[in-house]
Amino acid sequence: MEKLKRYVSVKDEDHFYQQGAVELLIFNFLLILTILTIWLFKNHRFRFLHETGGAMLYGLVMGLIIRYGTKSPDVESGTVYECEKLRSGPSTLLINITNQVYEYQYKREISHHNVNGHQGNAMLQKMTFDPPIFFNILLPPIIFHAGYSLKKRHFFRNLGSILTYAFLGTAISCVVIGLIMYGFVKAMVHIGQLKQWEFHFTDCLFFGSLMSATDPVTVLAIFHELDVDTDLYTLLFGESVLNDAVAIVLTHSISIYSPKENPNAFDAAAFFQSVGNFLGIFAGSFAMGSSYAVVTALISFMHLTKFTKLCDFPVLETGLFFLLSWSAFLSAEAAGLTGIVAVLFCGVTQAHYTYNNLSADSKRRTKQLFEFMNFLAENVIFCYMGLTLFTFQNHIFNPLFIFGAFVAVFVARASNIYPLSFLLNLGRKQKIPRNFQHMMMFSGLRGAIAFALAIRDTGSRPRAMMFSTALLLVLCTVWVLGGGTVPMLAWLHIRVGVDPDEDLKAKAASQSASNLDKNTTKAESAWLFRIWYGFDHKYLKPLLTHTGPPLTSTLPEWCSPVARLLTSPSAYGDQLKDGDTVYIIENDELTENHESSAHRPVPVQDSTGSIQATSTEDLQEGDLGLGGYKLQLQHTAGQPQKNSLA
Amino acid sequence: MEKLKRYVSVKDEDHFYQQGAVELLIFNFLLILTILTIWLFKNHRFRFLHETGGAMLYGLVMGLIIRYGTKSPDVESGTVYECEKLRSGPSTLLINITNQVYEYQYKREISHHNVNGHQGNAMLQKMTFDPPIFFNILLPPIIFHAGYSLKKRHFFRNLGSILTYAFLGTAISCVVIGLIMYGFVKAMVHIGQLKQWEFHFTDCLFFGSLMSATDPVTVLAIFHELDVDTDLYTLLFGESVLNDAVAIVLTHSISIYSPKENPNAFDAAAFFQSVGNFLGIFAGSFAMGSSYAVVTALISFMHLTKFTKLCDFPVLETGLFFLLSWSAFLSAEAAGLTGIVAVLFCGVTQAHYTYNNLSADSKRRTKQLFEFMNFLAENVIFCYMGLTLFTFQNHIFNPLFIFGAFVAVFVARASNIYPLSFLLNLGRKQKIPRNFQHMMMFSGLRGAIAFALAIRDTGSRPRAMMFSTALLLVLCTVWVLGGGTVPMLAWLHIRVGVDPDEDLKAKAASQSASNLDKNTTKAESAWLFRIWYGFDHKYLKPLLTHTGPPLTSTLPEWCSPVARLLTSPSAYGDQLKDGDTVYIIENDELTENHESSAHRPVPVQDSTGSIQATSTEDLQEGDLGLGGYKLQLQHTAGQPQKNSLA
Repeated sequence: MEKLKRYVSVKDEDHFYQQGAVELLIFNFLLILTILTIWLFKNHRFRFLHETGGAMLYGLVMGLIIRYGTKSPDVESGTVYECEKLRSGPSTLLINITNQVYEYQYKREISHHNVNGHQGNAMLQKMTFDPPIFFNILLPPIIFHAGYSLKKRHFFRNLGSILTYAFLGTAISCVVIGLIMYGFVKAMVHIGQLKQWEFHFTDCLFFGSLMSATDPVTVLAIFHELDVDTDLYTLLFGESVLNDAVAIVLTHSISIYSPKENPNAFDAAAFFQSVGNFLGIFAGSFAMGSSYAVVTALISFMHLTKFTKLCDFPVLETGLFFLLSWSAFLSAEAAGLTGIVAVLFCGVTQAHYTYNNLSADSKRRTKQLFEFMNFLAENVIFCYMGLTLFTFQNHIFNPLFIFGAFVAVFVARASNIYPLSFLLNLGRKQKIPRNFQHMMMFSGLRGAIAFALAIRDTGSRPRAMMFSTALLLVLCTVWVLGGGTVPMLAWLHIRVGVDPDEDLKAKAASQSASNLDKNTTKAESAWLFRIWYGFDHKYLKPLLTHTGPPLTSTLPEWCSPVARLLTSPSAYGDQLKDGDTVYIIENDELTENHESSAHRPVPVQDSTGSIQATSTEDLQEGDLGLGGYKLQLQHTAGQPQKNSLA
Repeated sequence: MEKLKRYVSVKDEDHFYQQGAVELLIFNFLLILTILTIWLFKNHRFRFLHETGGAMLYGLVMGLIIRYGTKSPDVESGTVYECEKLRSGPSTLLINITNQVYEYQYKREISHHNVNGHQGNAMLQKMTFDPPIFFNILLPPIIFHAGYSLKKRHFFRNLGSILTYAFLGTAISCVVIGLIMYGFVKAMVHIGQLKQWEFHFTDCLFFGSLMSATDPVTVLAIFHELDVDTDLYTLLFGESVLNDAVAIVLTHSISIYSPKENPNAFDAAAFFQSVGNFLGIFAGSFAMGSSYAVVTALISFMHLTKFTKLCDFPVLETGLFFLLSWSAFLSAEAAGLTGIVAVLFCGVTQAHYTYNNLSADSKRRTKQLFEFMNFLAENVIFCYMGLTLFTFQNHIFNPLFIFGAFVAVFVARASNIYPLSFLLNLGRKQKIPRNFQHMMMFSGLRGAIAFALAIRDTGSRPRAMMFSTALLLVLCTVWVLGGGTVPMLAWLHIRVGVDPDEDLKAKAASQSASNLDKNTTKAESAWLFRIWYGFDHKYLKPLLTHTGPPLTSTLPEWCSPVARLLTSPSAYGDQLKDGDTVYIIENDELTENHESSAHRPVPVQDSTGSIQATSTEDLQEGDLGLGGYKLQLQHTAGQPQKNSLA
C-alpha cells in the first residue's frame, strides 16, 4: 500500500514536471513564431507591426486558446475551505488530508469577489506567472540595456529638456490622470457601479502614477531603423528611460502614503512624508546603482594595472560584470529602494567607466549578452501581456473606467508635452519644433513598466480594475500608435535617414556660425555639468579607467605619491592642460567620436579568417557613446592629439 | 478598516518582493565571491580547487549561516492542520482565515516524519528552490554546451570505447551499486535501523542508477588547462556526457518499473517492459533532439539561399537558435521523454549542421552565449548543492547507508573501468594504457546530474536518505578527487602539454607506418560509421548545410530536378568522386582540420580597429570540431582541393 502510494506520488511528480515544461514550451513556441514573423516583416519592410506588437498578438491568440480550449479539471475549483484552528495565514501550510500530509505554499490574499470557477484551472494558473519573476528577472535586463546603450553625447546635449519632461512631466501627468479619474470614479459611484469607500483619491493618483510610465519601444525601434532626427530620438529615449524611474518611485511613494484619518482629506504631514520618500528613494537607488558600477570599474581597473589580469578570462569578466550589475538591482530591492532606478544608473555608469576597462572580447560579449537578454525579456513580457488578457482570472472591465482612462491618458500626455515644450523653448537655443512636439505627444505608448506596476497587486477590486484597464491601454497604444508611427512621421514631415554624427556636427557648425561669441556657447551648457565634466575628466576617469590625464598632473602636488599609485601607466600619454575643461565639454563628446567613427566601418575579422562586413544595424548599436575609449586607443597608438592642440 | 487592511496587504507584498530579491542576492553574492576566488587561484595556478568546488564551499558556508543565523519566525511551524471537508489535495487551495480568503498553492506531499520545526522558516524555505527550476532551466544549458562543444573528430575515433563505457559501464555500475546497497539495507533492517517494507531491491537499483551518473567537470577543466593527452580527455569527456544520458533514462525506467505483486520478487514481464521503456525513451529523446536541430538547420539554411537572409539579424538568429534548442529539451519533457538526452543530441547535431549555416557573428554569439550560460548554471548548481547540505529540512544521514554508498560507488567504478578496458583493449589497435585506466577510475566524480536526480523526489524516507547520501558523495568526490587530480596525473606519469592536432597526426602516422596494408586501417573504423559518414557527407550535409558535394552529383539521375532545387549554390565547388568515402573517414576529420587550424591563430580584429590576440583558451574552446566549415571556406576561396586530388 505504502509502495503503491509512492508510485502514484512519483507519477504525480512527473506530471508536475511535464506541466512546467509545457508552460515554458508554450512561451518558446510563441517567441519562435514572433521571431519568424518579425524576420519576414523586416524583409518586406513592413513597419506597421513591431516585434513587441507581434509577440503580444500571438500571446493574445494563445491566451484565447488556453482559456477556451482547456477545461478546468479540478472539481474543487472555487470552493473556499474553513480551518477553524487557523488564526493567521502562515507562509507554509501543512494540511492533513485523508492521512496524507500535503504542503501548501502561500501565494496571495484574495478578495471574496475574486473567487470564481476558473481558480482551479491548473493551466491558467501556471501560465500566470508570479509578479516577482517579472520584477526580479525580466525587467532588469531591459532597463540595464537602456542605460548601457544610452547615447551619452546626445543625451547630455539635451539633458535639461529630458530632465524636465521626465520629472516635471511625469508629475504633471500623474496629477492630471489622477484628477480626471477621480471625476470618473465619482460618476461611477453616482450611478452605483462603485461603492464610495472602495476608491479614494490616492487610488486615483496611484493609477495616475503607474499610467505615467511611457514605453515607446516600438516607436524608438522604428526611429532607429529609419534614422530619424537624433535630437527627437534622444528626447524621446531619454524621457522614456528616466520617466520609468520617476513613475516607479512615484507609484511606490503614493502606495505608502497613508494619511492618518480620512483617506480622502489632504494630510500635509503625510504628503510631505511622501515627497521625502520620493526624494530619498530616488537618491538612494541612484547611489546604490552607481556605487555598484564604481565597484565593478575598480575591480576591472585593478586587474589591468596589476600583474593579475581578469581580462585574460573573458567568461569570468563577463560573469562578474553581469552579476554585479544584477546585484545593484537586487540590493536596491532588498533595501526597500527601487531596483529599476538603481539598475538604470548602474547601466549608465558601467558604460561610462567600466566599459573602458574591459578587454575587447568582453566589450563585445557584454554588449551582445545584454542585447540578447533585452530582446528575449522584452518579447517574453509583451507575449505575456497578450496572454494575460485571457488567462488572468480576475479581470474587472468597467467600460466607464476604461473610457475615463483613455481620455485621462490622452489629456495628461498633452498637458505634459505642449506646456513644457513651450517653457523649454523659451530657454533653448535649438528650439523643439512643433512637429517634434506632435510626434512626442503621439509616442506616449504605455508598456512593460505600467503593466508590471499594475500586476504587482491585483488583490482588491480597485486594483484589479486598474490592472485590467492598464492592460487594455497597453494593448491599444502599442498596436494603434506603434503601427501608426511611419505614417505619422511622413504626415509631420519629420526627416529620416539622418547620420547622427553628421547631424551633430552640422548643428554645432550652424550654432557657432550664428554665435560668434564663444561665451554665449559656453553659457548655454549648464554650469553644473561643466563642473561635473571637469571633475569627471580630471579625477574620476583617471581613477576608474585608463583614459584621461594622469592623476599626477591633475591632483595637487602633495597628493603625488597617492596619485602615482592610482594612475594607470597608459594614462600618461594623455596630458591635458587645466584650462581645457571648456574644450572638453564643447568638443570632446562631439569631435572625438566623429573622428573615431571613421575608423569604425572596418570589417570584423573573425577567428576563421573570413572577412564579414558588420551589418549597419550592428554598427549603430555598437555606439555606446564612449568617446573616452576611442581616445585611449588613439593615445596608445601615439598619434598627434586634437586635445593637445587645443 | 478595509482601507487599512489593504495597506497592510501592500506592505506584505513588498515584503514578499524583498524576500525574493534577498534570495537572489545571496546567490549573486556567492557567485561573485566564487569568481573572485577562482580568478585569484587561476593567477597563482592553484589547481587544487576548481570553481565548482569553490562555489560549493561558499554555498556550504552560507547554508551554515542561514541555518543557524536566522531563526524561525513563524509560530505555526510544524503544525499540521485538519480540514474535514477536504478529500484530496487540489492544486490551489482557498482557505478562509478570519474572514479573509488566502490562496495557497500545492507544493508537495510530505511524510509525517518530515514534519519538523524548520518547516516554517521562510528563509530556509525560499533558499530551497523547486526541483523543476533545476531541471527545466539550469541543467539544459550545461548539457547542451557539452554536446555543442564536443570535439567530434576525437570523439568518433574513440566512439566504440565511449559507447561501451557509457552504456555497458553504466549498466554494470548501476547493478553493482544496487547489489551492494541491498546488502547494506538488509544489514540495516537486521540491526533495526530500517523497516523491512521501506526499502526494496528496486529502490537500491534506483539509487544505483542515479549514482552512476559521473560528472568529472573538475577533472576535465584541469585536463583542458594542462593539455592532457587528447585520447584520455576524449574518453572521459565522451563517457561522462553519454553516461549522464544513460543514467537519467535508466533512473526513469527503474522508477516506473512496477512489478505486479511482491516488489522484491523478480517479474520478468515488468523487467522487459522496463528495458523496452529504456530503449524507447532513449531513442525517442534522441529523435526529438536531433529533429529540432535539423529544423534549425533547415531554417537557417533556407534563409541563406533565398533572398531573405536571417543572418542579417544576428539577434534574431541567435534567439531562434537558442529557443529551438531549448524547445528540444522542453518538448521531450512534455512528451514524457527525457529532455537531457534530447538537448544533448540536439547540441551535437546543431554543432554538426546548423553551426555551418550561421553567420560569422552568430557563430561567435551562440558559442559565447552557451559558454556563459554553462558557466553560470554550473556555478549556481554547485553553489546550491553546498547550500542544501544545511538548508534542506528533511535530511536523513544514516552512517551505515553512507558508508555503504561510498564502498558501492568505489567498487562499481572499478568493475566498470577495469574489465571493460580489458575487453576493449582486445579489440583496439591503440590500447588504453594502464595509467589511463587508473586515471579514469580516479575521475569517477559525482556531480550535478546525480544531485538533480536525487532531489526530484525526497518525499519518502528512503528517498530522503538517498538524497542526503548522494549530496555527501558529491561534496566529497568533488573536493577530494577534484583536488587530487594534479598530483594524481603526476603520480601516474600521464603526459601533459599535448597539442591535440599534432598528437592526432603523430598517432595516425605511427599507425599507418605499422600497418602498411591500407585494408587493415579500413577494417578498424567500424563499417557502420563508414556507411553513416558516407551518407552524411553525400546527402545530409549538402541538404542541411553549404558544405559537401552538390546533391546533383550524389543523387541518382532521375532526382536531379529535386537535387538542383535543394543544393546550395556554394556547394558546387566541392566535387567529390563516389569512391572517396573511405578517404573522408580516414582523413577528412583529421587532415582538413589540422590544415585549417593553421589559419586559426589569425588575431581577432574588433570593430574599433584594435588588434587583440585571442587567448589560447579561447582558441581551443573555439574548436567545435567543424571540419566541414573550414572546407567550405577553402572552397569558396577557390584553392586547389585535397579532396579532389585523392
